[in-house]
Amino acid sequence: MIFARNLRRARRLQEMSQEALGLAAGLSRTYVSEVERGARNVSIDNMGALAKALGVPLKHLVDADMFNAVEMLPKE
Amino acid sequence: MIFARNLRRARRLQEMSQEALGLAAGLSRTYVSEVERGARNVSIDNMGALAKALGVPLKHLVDADMFNAVEMLPKE
Repeated sequence: MIFARNLRRARRLQEMSQEALGLAAGLSRTYVSEVERGARNVSIDNMGALAKALGVPLKHLVDADMFNAVEMLPKE
Repeated sequence: MIFARNLRRARRLQEMSQEALGLAAGLSRTYVSEVERGARNVSIDNMGALAKALGVPLKHLVDADMFNAVEMLPKE
């Protein structure tokens, strides 16, 4: 669930919508939403596409120590 | 391909066979071999299982800067 959580936080940090992230990664908004809810057993290719679309190294999106200070961001 | 490369190097560093890694991760030897050859669009659940089986943080297995000094290990 670390990837799911970090993906959402990284996206919000950039004030990007799920729609915009999906477009940039070549994926649907629904797919992005499912990944962020941990409802998808996402593949490494899609993980790479999402990280690239956010301009964030993939290793940061699977790092539990990253994006921790983002807790206080308002819900979308 | 970073994950494929690092997985193989991390496994060899521990002198673990593909068979043993597969067993520890609940996956087949063939699957481990395919992942290491980059022939599998591996899922995050299996990436996590492989990292756990190796005792290596997943972030290290997707980090291009990790396992670089392992180049001189003999081929299996």
